[in-house]
Formats: sequence, structure tokens, C-alpha cells
Amino acid sequence: MPHGLIVPGRPPRPSSQQRSGPELQEECGLFGVFGHPQAALLSYLGLFALQHRGQESAGIAVWDGEYLDCEKGMGLVGEVFERAEVAAWPGSAAVGHVRYPTCGSSDPVNAQPLVVRTFPGTLALAHNGELTDAGRWRADLEQKGAIFQTTSDTEVIAHLVSRSGRNEAGEALLDALGQVHGGFAVVVLSEGELFCARDPNGIRPLSIGRLGDAWLVASETCAIDSIGGEFVRDVEQGELVSIGEYGIRSAQFAAPGRPALCAFEYIYFARPDSDVQGKNVHQVRKELGRRLVRAFPVDADLVTGVPDSSVSAAIGYAEESGLPNEIGLIKNRYIGRTFIEPTQEGRELAVRLKLNPLRQVVKGQRVVLVDDSIVRGTTSRHIVGLLRQAGAAEVHLRITSPPYRCPCFYGIDTSSSAELIAARKSVEEIRQAVDADTLAYQTLSELTGALGYRADQLCLSCFNGDYPVPPPEGATSGEGRGGRQGGLFSGS
Amino acid sequence: MPHGLIVPGRPPRPSSQQRSGPELQEECGLFGVFGHPQAALLSYLGLFALQHRGQESAGIAVWDGEYLDCEKGMGLVGEVFERAEVAAWPGSAAVGHVRYPTCGSSDPVNAQPLVVRTFPGTLALAHNGELTDAGRWRADLEQKGAIFQTTSDTEVIAHLVSRSGRNEAGEALLDALGQVHGGFAVVVLSEGELFCARDPNGIRPLSIGRLGDAWLVASETCAIDSIGGEFVRDVEQGELVSIGEYGIRSAQFAAPGRPALCAFEYIYFARPDSDVQGKNVHQVRKELGRRLVRAFPVDADLVTGVPDSSVSAAIGYAEESGLPNEIGLIKNRYIGRTFIEPTQEGRELAVRLKLNPLRQVVKGQRVVLVDDSIVRGTTSRHIVGLLRQAGAAEVHLRITSPPYRCPCFYGIDTSSSAELIAARKSVEEIRQAVDADTLAYQTLSELTGALGYRADQLCLSCFNGDYPVPPPEGATSGEGRGGRQGGLFSGS
Amino acid sequence: MPHGLIVPGRPPRPSSQQRSGPELQEECGLFGVFGHPQAALLSYLGLFALQHRGQESAGIAVWDGEYLDCEKGMGLVGEVFERAEVAAWPGSAAVGHVRYPTCGSSDPVNAQPLVVRTFPGTLALAHNGELTDAGRWRADLEQKGAIFQTTSDTEVIAHLVSRSGRNEAGEALLDALGQVHGGFAVVVLSEGELFCARDPNGIRPLSIGRLGDAWLVASETCAIDSIGGEFVRDVEQGELVSIGEYGIRSAQFAAPGRPALCAFEYIYFARPDSDVQGKNVHQVRKELGRRLVRAFPVDADLVTGVPDSSVSAAIGYAEESGLPNEIGLIKNRYIGRTFIEPTQEGRELAVRLKLNPLRQVVKGQRVVLVDDSIVRGTTSRHIVGLLRQAGAAEVHLRITSPPYRCPCFYGIDTSSSAELIAARKSVEEIRQAVDADTLAYQTLSELTGALGYRADQLCLSCFNGDYPVPPPEGATSGEGRGGRQGGLFSGS
Amino acid sequence: MPHGLIVPGRPPRPSSQQRSGPELQEECGLFGVFGHPQAALLSYLGLFALQHRGQESAGIAVWDGEYLDCEKGMGLVGEVFERAEVAAWPGSAAVGHVRYPTCGSSDPVNAQPLVVRTFPGTLALAHNGELTDAGRWRADLEQKGAIFQTTSDTEVIAHLVSRSGRNEAGEALLDALGQVHGGFAVVVLSEGELFCARDPNGIRPLSIGRLGDAWLVASETCAIDSIGGEFVRDVEQGELVSIGEYGIRSAQFAAPGRPALCAFEYIYFARPDSDVQGKNVHQVRKELGRRLVRAFPVDADLVTGVPDSSVSAAIGYAEESGLPNEIGLIKNRYIGRTFIEPTQEGRELAVRLKLNPLRQVVKGQRVVLVDDSIVRGTTSRHIVGLLRQAGAAEVHLRITSPPYRCPCFYGIDTSSSAELIAARKSVEEIRQAVDADTLAYQTLSELTGALGYRADQLCLSCFNGDYPVPPPEGATSGEGRGGRQGGLFSGS
Repeated sequence: MPHGLIVPGRPPRPSSQQRSGPELQEECGLFGVFGHPQAALLSYLGLFALQHRGQESAGIAVWDGEYLDCEKGMGLVGEVFERAEVAAWPGSAAVGHVRYPTCGSSDPVNAQPLVVRTFPGTLALAHNGELTDAGRWRADLEQKGAIFQTTSDTEVIAHLVSRSGRNEAGEALLDALGQVHGGFAVVVLSEGELFCARDPNGIRPLSIGRLGDAWLVASETCAIDSIGGEFVRDVEQGELVSIGEYGIRSAQFAAPGRPALCAFEYIYFARPDSDVQGKNVHQVRKELGRRLVRAFPVDADLVTGVPDSSVSAAIGYAEESGLPNEIGLIKNRYIGRTFIEPTQEGRELAVRLKLNPLRQVVKGQRVVLVDDSIVRGTTSRHIVGLLRQAGAAEVHLRITSPPYRCPCFYGIDTSSSAELIAARKSVEEIRQAVDADTLAYQTLSELTGALGYRADQLCLSCFNGDYPVPPPEGATSGEGRGGRQGGLFSGS
Repeated sequence: MPHGLIVPGRPPRPSSQQRSGPELQEECGLFGVFGHPQAALLSYLGLFALQHRGQESAGIAVWDGEYLDCEKGMGLVGEVFERAEVAAWPGSAAVGHVRYPTCGSSDPVNAQPLVVRTFPGTLALAHNGELTDAGRWRADLEQKGAIFQTTSDTEVIAHLVSRSGRNEAGEALLDALGQVHGGFAVVVLSEGELFCARDPNGIRPLSIGRLGDAWLVASETCAIDSIGGEFVRDVEQGELVSIGEYGIRSAQFAAPGRPALCAFEYIYFARPDSDVQGKNVHQVRKELGRRLVRAFPVDADLVTGVPDSSVSAAIGYAEESGLPNEIGLIKNRYIGRTFIEPTQEGRELAVRLKLNPLRQVVKGQRVVLVDDSIVRGTTSRHIVGLLRQAGAAEVHLRITSPPYRCPCFYGIDTSSSAELIAARKSVEEIRQAVDADTLAYQTLSELTGALGYRADQLCLSCFNGDYPVPPPEGATSGEGRGGRQGGLFSGS
Repeated sequence: MPHGLIVPGRPPRPSSQQRSGPELQEECGLFGVFGHPQAALLSYLGLFALQHRGQESAGIAVWDGEYLDCEKGMGLVGEVFERAEVAAWPGSAAVGHVRYPTCGSSDPVNAQPLVVRTFPGTLALAHNGELTDAGRWRADLEQKGAIFQTTSDTEVIAHLVSRSGRNEAGEALLDALGQVHGGFAVVVLSEGELFCARDPNGIRPLSIGRLGDAWLVASETCAIDSIGGEFVRDVEQGELVSIGEYGIRSAQFAAPGRPALCAFEYIYFARPDSDVQGKNVHQVRKELGRRLVRAFPVDADLVTGVPDSSVSAAIGYAEESGLPNEIGLIKNRYIGRTFIEPTQEGRELAVRLKLNPLRQVVKGQRVVLVDDSIVRGTTSRHIVGLLRQAGAAEVHLRITSPPYRCPCFYGIDTSSSAELIAARKSVEEIRQAVDADTLAYQTLSELTGALGYRADQLCLSCFNGDYPVPPPEGATSGEGRGGRQGGLFSGS
Repeated sequence: MPHGLIVPGRPPRPSSQQRSGPELQEECGLFGVFGHPQAALLSYLGLFALQHRGQESAGIAVWDGEYLDCEKGMGLVGEVFERAEVAAWPGSAAVGHVRYPTCGSSDPVNAQPLVVRTFPGTLALAHNGELTDAGRWRADLEQKGAIFQTTSDTEVIAHLVSRSGRNEAGEALLDALGQVHGGFAVVVLSEGELFCARDPNGIRPLSIGRLGDAWLVASETCAIDSIGGEFVRDVEQGELVSIGEYGIRSAQFAAPGRPALCAFEYIYFARPDSDVQGKNVHQVRKELGRRLVRAFPVDADLVTGVPDSSVSAAIGYAEESGLPNEIGLIKNRYIGRTFIEPTQEGRELAVRLKLNPLRQVVKGQRVVLVDDSIVRGTTSRHIVGLLRQAGAAEVHLRITSPPYRCPCFYGIDTSSSAELIAARKSVEEIRQAVDADTLAYQTLSELTGALGYRADQLCLSCFNGDYPVPPPEGATSGEGRGGRQGGLFSGS
């Protein structure tokens, strides 16, 4: 279709079977600035550092003291925005967003920030995560006469803000956020203030920083770092932080629930140079690697991590085991998210294009292959196959997290539980399916130990079905929940 | 800015001073199809025939029995859509829209059709005209918690539909349209029906046609003609027509007011091959030309009309006067609507590029120049100047309509009355301002005579300030309304 | 295909059967500037005035005293260039080109100006017309080791310049142009000079003008006019004009042959406000219309011209006959050159979209329809059909030129003579084919009389096969040349 | 500038000071296919695997038995081509190219393959490397009447082919390649054959592979691997390989000179999973790392490689030294080649965005930082600075190659020698300039030892000025060549 199209309908969307991208789709990235003359440019740079959290769309909204403007589009930050134009965009407060669609289809109207003209004024909302009661609220609001133009959860929050009856944006947000449930972080720009909030269980991360006199907000600390800022603190569970000419203020929109940070932020989503709730992601992943050695030792010649997510864990595994940490697979940096192959043959070819085995490294070797998770199993089977074709004598697959058995309702796109191989198969069956010589998963207790939390301080629901916030009604029935609970280790 | 941008903020918009386009901006064009397997393609072709009514954006929404999809973008129909893709778009009901922004800024989010998910289902709304109570309704609705994503009047109607409490789209539309006021025509596509309606005074035109078994709806009959259809009838004042599998049904959403079709549809907007309320536009314009001869005779050598809008009137003038009808100005067909000149020097150059005088025709001649209206006077002064530079001995300007003194509140973008030269100056002063040897305007009674209506059967408010629907509160105060009322004829 | 593609291969090209555009394709337009600080901007504006001569590609090359830069692309001037960027392009000499491909396929590499690095320096060549010996020269040059990157005649001239052995561009051009034959006009920008030349018979037009101290060159005087310049003189037959810091110089690259300006420049190609060799096109066309009345009188109620090319002739016809000159067909201004219909049904629909009959004008009337030529006959048949469907009682077709029987070898794209209906059919057979009540063509002697030339002062080869320059070998054999020579008038 | 522009002039090009990309620019990548029904698709996939060799433009030419078509554009393979369109492109022979401009400016006309119509037919030429006598040949050919449309060396070869007088493409190529000098690899597609050749010293690599019955040619074996092909052999020095319906043939266009493969292919350019002349790049780099430990031992806590080029060497360093191999810097995968910062402040910010130090890893540690080379020194200074800001106690910089002192004339874009820090400064001065605690370069003998060649079997000219092919006249004078020859190790 030609340029400039605004397509609020139903665009073609690849099914999860067709994607040759990562099996676990990232969520979204949020960035906010208050009190800096180049708020748009800082947001643009900050979004570059959060691009790993969402590559489908990018958007920035800026308050210039008179208007709240927004520009957004489909694609990477560098595709949607021209640096020179962003640098020339005046305004001292801004909010930016990168998106991978966890709820709401991959539709341009769902690109964020969402700009709405509400009773308390014009707002730009950026959201990461998922509301468990979005469907119920939509039905309720539509019945009360609300009209929806997107299919994103963010619009539900906008309606609740508008209907709160409050004429101050901060008051209205307090009111609105107190009514919704789920795992979420939000950054909202109004005509003069910047707001940020985290759900009562703190499932999704959100951090506050400073750059000189300006305030920064980011999904991950690497974005604060990357533009030269200093980390200040995380947003608290159920907290709404307001930043304005008056400085910074805190309020609770809901009482904190049990702490339940998503464990997958450590395992897979966050960048290694981010600190999530004070713990460095790289160090945590190294520890995950180390613990796999102790729990499931194996005779082997070398260890290699699936790039890029498991490179840190492989370092830990190598240090603990004394095996050399090698480059067994070369990742092609130029195969983008849009590389969709329509045929089975094409998808196998695509895996090879993306990950070429280093024959001279693995030939004749007993290889420990470290990966972060197995979702559907197809990618793991391809990678094990690549290593075998390259001459690996044995392939021992080590997964830094426990079996992924249950769907996520807080922002990770794991489709239906029917697609989760661990919901249907035992570890031994999975080992056979991916054709590894041995397969071992991290245990839950090793996982929480490595992360340095008690089990009741994290969201581990994808592993154990213990949902800190009730899932949407009817959502967890079906075979997914009742997957066979085999042992975590299976070997030949 | 790069491609694919969705820009709901405030894009740069040329002020009326900067535009080198026509002084009276066209409104919008509507097209609808029900019951044809190529509904999208027919809409695309129909919009080509209505392109003169709006060149800023184009959009089509299609119902394929399962989804209601919409594609729209900034630019001409042929720029926004690829014919082959439209031809491959399945669906038997569609609504199309071309837009010039009369209310709501020239912002991509204001492109129509507007697709909304409401209580009675998903709707695509296309709108021509203006609501006089839109501002009041927006304030009221926002206070009740409605959120707005566009600045267009259409979104007000969508909210009233959604809040009607009715769960059938037709019922909800009846309810919503009964609550708003102004001059408007709307075409709405729902999940299975096509609706069209005209305001209670019938200010904006809307016609129904057939193509085989399919139903067509169009702002002008030329669009029905152009795709080979047959005109059936006009939509009536205050009527909501519903078209569905059941056939066609009529209902009144409001009692008809006094008939008040916009006279400017005949004078300027409509295409000469359209019949507006049964009267052919070309024939009406010829009659307007003829009556100028009788009322304001002048000795001259030839008559020429400003292309393209006054070509029909010049034919009438020539026939009645016996003067030769000549081509005095060549219009460059390739200067698009976006040819905006930032400087005064540039704007004069642009007028010359657009309209080059035919020196060999006008040199030494006494020229009668026929035009449809004078809004700010700048374009008229430029054109008279071009003829004089090309050697015209005398230039007698004849305007086919009365002095344009009052702003329109029903869909014509005449900016503030402060810009209307006839609101501030007498005819003699205008003559001096545009540097014509003589200047004559049509009188109101000749106008209504030529159109074949009584004065109380038309909207003539831009000439006489007699508004059939009360303007927005406070809108008509100021100098504009009290313009000096000089005679309609002034000569040297 | 995505943006930024440079495609030197073989793009899809619609066959002449698929085009719904004009049957006679325009040629090319040339524009040059020397000695003005805004040479790029003037070229851009001048090309707008020449856009009717070519809509496929547009290009401008500018000499800024240091570099000779060129930008070009597929599409209209307003699509290829952004006004603001052109205005910021420094340089005091420039050459511009708009193209319709008469030789060389519709391939982006054939877009002009063609920039080449030759022995006498870097040159930008712009060319209108066709070389009759291009094929022979290509074969010869390739055998001598020349490589070609385009399929355009212009590249042949570039090779001859480069191989002339001269190290001054002007000397080399004199040498090169003296070796080629055909009908052509060229404008060439070098590193410091601007050159313009016309073939020895003067088949293609080229005019010189001034704007203050700057020199202008243009295919038509309307472009000089449109930017406020003054016409100075035409380039002479076989003349090479050099413009530099030294002023203007003239040289003959070849002795003038018999004068042979293309008659179709008056009949169809040029804009009515241009003077071609001192004669105004509009006035000539009016005279063509007048002479048709005298030669082939017919009882009728009104006359109408096919827009836009025959509007002038219809005025002349009306004046001479006393019949009213009416608007019988409304041309849709928004149907672009790219509106290609793949199917027969689609093409008929496209004609209707482009030209809608004014039913209220033609119904029940005996219509004289004036057109400039009949090439294949399909368009004429469609238009006559439209008038009949709209109720015309009789349609009398009057063609302002004689039957078009022979292919052009000097720059008009008439494809093979097999497609020329007049090469195969008598006038009576053509009348039947186009379904007119009567059909009359202008006679050759009336044509030359109206144009004010003797027959041996014009190129009339498309009418009488008398080629002023020998066509390419073997090119005129076949049925085309020996078309049946029926009388010029045939009636029912 | 708008879409579809073909710009043969002089586009803006960032100076090397402005680029924030790698200091050593990659060269070009070549790929060819013969005898496969999906030749275009295979080329597209192969180019993805070679994208690291050039990101400025991409192009593919295909022979379909009738036409030789070419599509190319500015940008990455995935930006220039749509997979679906490539997959639908018929033809059994193809050549593809990705480009970083080593000679010829970054101008779209220089995109390759270059398609030329020559005496021996139409050819598509793709070229990697640089001719040392290109300038002389251009002057000579221009004097003989050749015209040039690009500034690339490839066009020189095309002219020599065309002027060879041979009418078979293979014969003409043999003749042409025998006349030029430099370091180059070429792949040429004709109307029916595929040719590949390597310069007489074998400076640039080129390998042959098979995929079923089809033949493949690629700059690196990783491209053959990535599409599932098998490596067959390298093209030999001075060899022209012809592939056609007849099978594969070999001929020498020149006698082999001394072997002189570019050492930088191992050090920096090639992908780790490629085998260059039979040696695996990853293993060679590991050995380079190992040898640095032995030659320049240092007390430290960890080793880290600059991603991505020095990751392999860091593994070797770690293995040999026993130090842990850590991730000290996180590379942002989304900062593209076009991220150009106009200001000094901006460039420092850009380095931070691209490479964020892992504070938790380096804080308080004595870090060995392994990099492949120091060109201007600015990037090294930035990286050392980042590690110090992150708290590194000491930074010991280890370079896997000797000081880069002399410009390359065979395809690496190192600008003038004035920019080479090692041409002007001693190792101690460089250490101070980059602010490292110690700095050590590999010695030449360790380099050749690690690569497994004798010094006279490689091109080491950038280190020792020993050029296997004479540089262009006058090119090596100036300060660059006589840089101070300090020791290779300097420490605090």
C-alpha cells in the first residue's frame, strides 16, 4: 500500500507459526523526560536503548508549553524518526514508546503514545504490560457509550481517566489506575506534567533517573545510562509519581500487593547492562548459568550460548564448569524482525541465515548449548539440528529457566497454552522433540536463588501457574494449565 | 518526516494568506455502495469523480461480511490508493470520503471515514458539512467522560451514537442525528448496513442511485453517472435512509425545516455535469451569466471566464451579449493544491504559473472577465493585473454571485469575516482594490431567479446573513456581520 | 518495489492497447537558464509550464561553479522535486527536462538530463525528438568499444561529443551534432556554459528568452512567459547557440535543410498560449476550426470540442458557423497518466471517468464534435458513444488535421503504422468504425493555409509520408505506408 | 528529497570526522548463482550473509534467458528488496552486490551491479576492491572518447571489455582484466554466462561453491554456508572462471604474482564463520588473542573484546591468560550505519548509545580491552573513557594487529594517511592519546605466525608499506609513509 496510509482496520498479521523471530516476543519500552529543552531528542535516544523491548512501532509525544504533539509510525525508532527533525522539535517534556503488540493487533492505530482529548485535558499515554480486566472494562464502557478507536488496553485507561469526573490529570489518573488490574507500567504526558505508575504487584519494571535538573523515566536503566543520566529509584508498587514545575510527588493509586516482578525480565527481556530492581541482569544471568552446572553436570568439551540472550549465562556456565566458552553460532545482525518466511522450507532456511554454526568450533565436540527458554520447541530443534549438521558429537541443551508451562496475562505474547510444548510434554519428550542428547531445565528454587528473591516475591506464573493477579475469566481453562508435570531433567 | 507516520498532533498548516489555491475551499465528498461485489473499486472510482470536493485526504471503508476495514491517507485518491489493490479488496458494502478540512485541522487523524467501535458495533462514518453545536457537544461529552481523538465534527456524532443506549446502529443513528444541528450530509457503514442522511434543512446535497442491483450514494450525481449508475432520488431533509439486505428504508430523524440548500453548490462547488436537486449545474451557471448581461450591460470586445469554475457562466454571458467567448487565461493543470509559496513575490509568480494570459487574445481588447465570487480580493486583483499586463484595454469584472459578506457555518471554509473583502468595503471600493474598470455583482433576486428557487428555499446566508440554522454562540459578532452595504454595481 | 530503487533493467511497460491516456503521446520539454542566482528554481517553475510535453520523468542539472549536479526521478515535476529544496539549490546555470519516452523505454535510467563525464568535461544533456540514425550509430559505436547505459538517443550524442577529440564542449558539440540526423532539439549544460541547438530542418521547436540579465531556453514560449521572461528569438535550423560568461554566440553545426517544423506542434502538442515560430497556437487552432466549417458544412445545433486539446478549434468553429459553442464533455482533472486499466471493461469505464458527457447539453441535439486527430480510432469511438448514450441525436465528427497515415520518426510515439486506423481504412470506413453520423478531416491545403505556411515549409510526413529526413532503413516498409487513400470527407 | 530519485550528481557525504561508524569501512560483497531456478532469491539470501561487507547499497541482476534485468538501491538488502518480489523474479543466473564505497563516492549511480550494453552484449558487473591504475585508465579512455556515468572502478573494466574488439564476453573479459592492476575480485553476469575473477596477487578473496547442480560464487564462504551450499574451491590468482551451460572453465587473464591476500580479511572484515583461503577466521582471531598474552603479559582481572569484531580474539586471550572473558560493553544492535552526529557532543553521545559499559562487570577491575586496530584513535579514546567512567581501575588495550601506518590502495577506505594516528605517533604517544594504562600491538611476525603464512604470502602493506602492486603515482608521498617507527609496546 502507498505511503502515508492510516489503517485502522485489520492488516495481515503473521501467525506465530510463520514468524521466524524470537519465540517470546518482547513487550514494550517506555521513556519519559521532564524539564529538559531537548526532551524530544532525549526521548529518541532513550528509545534506541529500549528498542529490544519492541520493534513494531515507535512514537514520541512532546509538550511545548502550548501544544501536546505526537508523531508515531510503524517500524524501528531509526525508521520512524529523522534525527535532525527530532532535534529541532521544541518542548521540555516528552514521552516515548516502542511497541511489540502483546494485546491489540499489530495495527498502526495501536501505535503509542495514544493521544486523547479528555475532560482533564489532552493526554499522551504510553503503556507496557496488559490489563487482565480490559475486556470486561471495554464491554462495560461501550455499553455506557464510550467509543473505541484502538484495540489496545491503553484506551481503557484513557476512558477511565476521562470519566473520573476529576478535572486535574493527576487526580483522574489516580482514580483510573485504581480501577484496573493486571501487570503494567504507564508513562503519561499531560499539558504540563509527566506521570508514571506501576501496577500494585510491580510486575512490570519502571525506573526514575535524573540528567542534570531534568527528570527521566524508563522501562530499563540502560536507557537512563545511555544518555548519560543517573539512576534515582524504581517506581514503587501501586505508586503514581507526578513530575511538574513543582518537582516530584508520590501517591498510591492502590495499596501494594505481594511483590511480583516478572522473572522473565531477568531471564530474557532486559538488556544485560540494565539493573532491574537493583540487580544487574548480566550478573543474574551468569548465576543462572553457574547453577545449571552444579545441578545438572555433564561431560562436554565446550559451552556456547544462543546469541544474544544467553551469552551471559554461557559465561557463568563456563566459569563454573571450567569448559571453554565458545562461539558456536554466528548471528546475522541484518535479518530484521520482518523476515517472515511463508513456507516451512523457507523458515528452515531463515533459521540458517540467522544463525550459522561455526563448524570449525563444534565439529567433533560435545557441546553444551545454553538457552533461556523453550516455548514451542521449533527453534530449539532447528538450532540443535544446525549444530549436529556442523558435526557436533553431542548436544546438551541447558535452559536457564524452568519449563514454560502457562500463558502469561501480564504482557508477554505466548499465544495460547496449546502452543507451549512444556504444557503438553514431559522433559524427556521435549528432549526427544528437540533432538538433544540431554536436556535440563533450571529448577524453580535455583531460579529464585539465582535471582535473589523468595518465590513469593516474583511472578513465576508462567512456570507454576501461580498468578499474582487473577487472569481474565475463562482464560486459563483448557489443556495448557494441566500440562504433564515431568521431572526437570531428562538425559539419554 | 518519514513514511508511515501517524501524526495526531498539530502539523504545520498554511495560513489562508499563504495558500495560492482557490479562495473558497471545497468541502468534502461522500460516496457509498451497497450490494456490489466490487464495492471498494466502485468507491474508488466514485471518489475520483468527487475529487474536486476535497483534495487533502481520501479514505475507503469496506464491510466484507466479517470485518469492517478502512484505509485512508493524506493526498489525492490516486495517491492514497493503488487501483490494483483496491480492485482486490473484497466486500459488498463500502463508504468513501474525500476531504477538505472545513472544521478540524488538516491533520491526518481527521482523515475520514472515521472508524469507531461503539456499543451498537463498529461503524465507519463519513461526513460533509459542519455542526453548529459541535463545540457545545464536545464540551458536554468531555465533561461526561468522552474522549476525543480527532478534532472533527464526525466524532461528536459517533459519541452520540455510542451513548444512545440503542444496540442497533440504525436506531442509534436516528437518535444521534436528532440531537445535532448544522448543515451536513453523512454516509455511515455498519457491520451489514449502509446509512445516509441529510440535515433537516437540506443544506448539503446527497443523492441516491442504482447500478444494477446495487445501491449508490453520492454527494453529487456526476459520481453516480461516472461509474455508469442511474440517479434515483435525493435524500430528503432530515431523512435517514437505511440500506441493507432487506432493501431500502426511510425514516425521519428530525422534522424538515425550511428548505435551505447551499446556493454555492450551484455557483462554485458542484461539477457542471451534476444535477443538484434536479437542476443541472452547467445550465444554472449559464443562466447566471446571461442575467449579468441584462442587469449590467457594458461595451466590450470579448468575454472570458476564469477557468474552470466560470467557464459555464461565460458561455451564458457570450450567448446573451453576442460577444465572442474567448480563452483569455490558460490554466496549468499540473500545479497542485500543495503549491504553497512562502513569499509575496513567490505567490505572484505562482498565480502566473497557474494562469497565463493569452496575450494574443486580450491585447488591445475590452475584456469582460466572469468569475464566481470575490472572497479576499487578492486573487481577483492578480487576475485583472495579468490581463492588463497582457495588453487588455479594459477589464470589466462580472461576478455571478452577490457580494460574499458573511461567514459560512455549514461547511465552507471562509475563515473569519475579517478576511471577507465585501464585509468591509463597498462595491466601488472593491472595484478599486481589484483594479477593474467596472465591477458588477449578481443581485440576490437575479441569483434566486437563475437558480429557480424562492429566496426562502435556499441558504443565502453568506450573502445576506440570514442563517437557516443558528450559528454557534458568539460566532457572528464582530465586524464581519456589519459590513457596509453598498450597491451591487460600481463602474468608472 | 521499495523506495530508492534505481532500475536499469526492463520495467513493465503498458502496451499502447492498455493505455487509457491520449492516443498521441507528447514528446519532451526542455528548459535552460544561464546567469541567474536561482537557476534551479527557475528551471523547476519553467518545467511546470512544459509539463504537458512529458509526464513520465523530470530532471534538473545545475552548475554551481564547482560541480555539475543532477537530480531526476520518475513522475511529475511536483512529485520528483520539493519546491523548498529546489529553492535552496545554489547555482547560476541549469538545464531541466520533462519526458515522455518516444525512444528508449519508460525506464528510469532513461530519465534526463543525462550526465556524462567526457573528454571535454562533465555534461548534462537534455533532448527532445528522435535521431533517425541512432540505431546505426549505436551499432557503430558499440563496435568501436563504446558502452551504453541507457537506450535513449541522447547517449549517442554524448558518445559523439566524447569521441570528437575536441577538448572544448562547444567545439565537440558542433562536431557531434553535425554527424547525426533526425528531428531534435537539445539543451546541454557544461561546466560553465549552456548550449542549445535545433536540427537542420527545425522539426522540433526551441526558443530563447531573457529574464533581466539571465538567458532562458525553452521548448515553448509559454514557459518563458510563465516565469515573467521575454521571448527573444527561436533557435535557427542547424544552429548551435552557446551562452557563457562571454555572452551569447551562434554557430551552424550543419547547413539548414528545407524548413520542416512539425505541424503537430500547432495541432496538438503546444500549449495554446505558446507562440511557435511566431504564430500563436490558440489562434492557429481557431483558424483550423473555422476552415472545417467552410469545407464541410453540416446542419447541427451546437459544437463542442474534446477537452482540452480541441477547445480552441471549437471556438473557431462556433464563430464561423454561428452555432453555440457548448461544453458537451466534462474532463476529470484528477485522472492521471498512470490510470491504466487492465481489462477492456475497465478501459471503457476509465474513458467515462475521464470524460463525462453533459447530458443536459447534448440530449436531443445534433452535435458537431471537434477533435484534433484520430490515431487508432478507439478513443473517438468511445467519445461518440458517450454522446449517443447521453442522448445526442446526431454526432458529426470534425478533425482539425488530415488523416494520420504514416508513423513519425522525429519524436512522436505513434507506434507502428499497423495501429494507425487511417493507414488501413478509408474515411468512410473510419466513420463507421467510430460510429459518427458524418466525419470530416481537414485537407492538407486547408491545414497549411490555416498555419500560414507553404506545404514545403512544414513537416507533414504523418499525413503524406513526405519525410524531410530519411527514416531509419527498413522502418517505413510494411502496410502502414501504403494505406488506402480515400477521400477526406465521408457522410451518411 | 522525494522518492524514486536518481541522483548522479554529488550528494552530501559525511566526512570521516562525522561518521560515528567503524573506523575501518568494510569493502564490498559479491555473490553469484548459475543454474538454479531461483537465482534471484538465492542471491538475495546470500547478500544477507555478506551484508557486513557493505551497507550502503545493494543490487541484484538476473538473466532470465531473454533479458538481463537489474534492480538496485541505496540501503540494506532488506530495505532495497522485498522478499516476495525477489522470490517471484524468474531467471537461472544472477549476480548480487552489497557496497561500501571504497572508491567512487557514496552516490546512487555508483550502486552495483553496473549494467552496460557493450559490443559483446549486455553485462552486469559487480566488483570488490580497487584498481590502482583506474585514474590513469579513465584519463586515457576519456581521451579516446569514452564517456563515464559513474565514478567507480567497475566502469573502467566495462570500457576495456567493450573496447577489446572481442565479441564473446569471456574473451573480452580475459582481455580487459589483463590490462588492469590492483586488488580486486569481480563477478560478471552476461547473457548466458557467469564469470568470476581475482586479481593476480589474490588480494581480495572469492570462493566457489555448489548447491545441488547449481554453481555459487561468494566473497566469503559464510554466504555459501548460509544458503546450504558446499564450498568447492577459491578462485585462483589471476584466474577467470567461466560458468555456462557447458559447465565450468578456467583461464588465466594474467600470470599469478606473489600471493598477497589482505591480512585484514582475517583481522577485521570477514565473518568469523567464514574460511578465507582455507583458514577459519574465528580460529585465526583466537590465535591472535593468544599470542598477545604471550608477547605482552599484564596483570589484570578480566578481559573483554570490543563487540563484535574482537569477540573471537578475546576468547583466545582469555584461554591463554586464564583471565575470565567478560562482557564489558553492550553493543546496541539498532544503531544503524546512518547514525551521523553533526556535533562533537553528539558524537560522544552516539558512542555511548552504541556501546554502553557494563558497570557491574568492570567496576574496580583491571580490564584488558582487546580490539582489532586503531585507525584515527578517536574511537579507542572514547571506549577507554567509557570503561573508566564505569569504574575500571585500569585499562590495558591490546590490538590484534600491528600499527596501521600506511593507506590501503586495494579497497579499504582509510582516507589519507594524515588521519592514521600510527603514521604520526609512536606507540607511547598513541597510548597517551587513547588514555590507556598500557597499550600493545601485535608484532608483524606474530601476526603472520597466527595467520599461518609467511610475510611474503600476504598483503601487509598497511602495516609495513610493502605494496604488492604499485600504488597510484604520487599517492603514497606525504607524511603518511614516513611515520615514526616506535616500538610496538608501550606501558606505564
